Amino acid sequence: MQGDAHIENLTTTIHDLVTHSNITNGTLTLFIKHTTAAVMIIEDEPGIRADTRAFWNQVVPANPQWEHNTRNPGEDNGHSHLRGQLQSPSITIPLMQGKLTLGTWQQIVVIDFDTRARTRELVVQIMGE
Amino acid sequence: MQGDAHIENLTTTIHDLVTHSNITNGTLTLFIKHTTAAVMIIEDEPGIRADTRAFWNQVVPANPQWEHNTRNPGEDNGHSHLRGQLQSPSITIPLMQGKLTLGTWQQIVVIDFDTRARTRELVVQIMGE
Amino acid sequence: MQGDAHIENLTTTIHDLVTHSNITNGTLTLFIKHTTAAVMIIEDEPGIRADTRAFWNQVVPANPQWEHNTRNPGEDNGHSHLRGQLQSPSITIPLMQGKLTLGTWQQIVVIDFDTRARTRELVVQIMGE
Repeated sequence: MQGDAHIENLTTTIHDLVTHSNITNGTLTLFIKHTTAAVMIIEDEPGIRADTRAFWNQVVPANPQWEHNTRNPGEDNGHSHLRGQLQSPSITIPLMQGKLTLGTWQQIVVIDFDTRARTRELVVQIMGE
Repeated sequence: MQGDAHIENLTTTIHDLVTHSNITNGTLTLFIKHTTAAVMIIEDEPGIRADTRAFWNQVVPANPQWEHNTRNPGEDNGHSHLRGQLQSPSITIPLMQGKLTLGTWQQIVVIDFDTRARTRELVVQIMGE
Repeated sequence: MQGDAHIENLTTTIHDLVTHSNITNGTLTLFIKHTTAAVMIIEDEPGIRADTRAFWNQVVPANPQWEHNTRNPGEDNGHSHLRGQLQSPSITIPLMQGKLTLGTWQQIVVIDFDTRARTRELVVQIMGE
């Protein structure tokens, strides 16, 4: 994935995994295995994507003075860590009658806060019966 | 629910649902089906309610310049989306010996960040045995 | 635990509990029973610990004017509540092939936002088969 708060919409992929799981009632847990990315639920339209980037740039700006950067030569992603750990790598969504209980406007996305493109691994866990 | 960071305490309702579920060990997942509201655990007293509103007004102010508002005619709730997606629509609480494992001061609330009153749907999922 | 955004790393302890549970596939839910502390996943190195404290001091400063403090004589931890409720007391991590699905750099920590040392209770729930 590209970094710099790039957003990737995974709703259709996750819906397909739920359908093929044949699980009727249970929970879906999404967990991204990285400290500078997060899983979110948003209304995914260009305005929200732009506002999300603007919000993070204001509240947790990139800054060479973050101690993660000054203490670790070569690191420049202190802000990416702060964003990822607050937004959280994990989310749980109930599954009923074989479907995610997402509302009309809710989309599942991964947001990558890192400063360069990286390969990302997402765990998709479906539990239930 | 009213918008503007209005808080509704659901602890008693959720406790009753847990009791009637006859599930002894497991998890409760709460999931609100909206992008401009969230589920939280707080010490629910008037000071915390006021501080929560003040915090959000400072950190993610209402602003006609959010791109969600400028790009989508009629929308004024860009800040509501940013607040809801950061606070998260989902929370999971363990259930042991037939009871939620909430601490003494922990209350379950829904917070509505939208700019006007709306009907809200909350999914309550109890899993276990 | 000490307060003031003190961080305690629990990764090894939790790994041991998972190993001894003999559960192969499922979820781990961590839930801290307090409104002024939180469970987080971070890259645990001194720079990130320092940046996390700096971030919270900037975004939610200690302030005698928080209404939790002014309305409740003797209280000084309004900011601790705001931090804990946003960071969240709960996190869920999938468990596959008998192991947590944590990435290379992901560590499980508890962060205590309170203004003085307190004893803290953490619920560790392992579900699955």
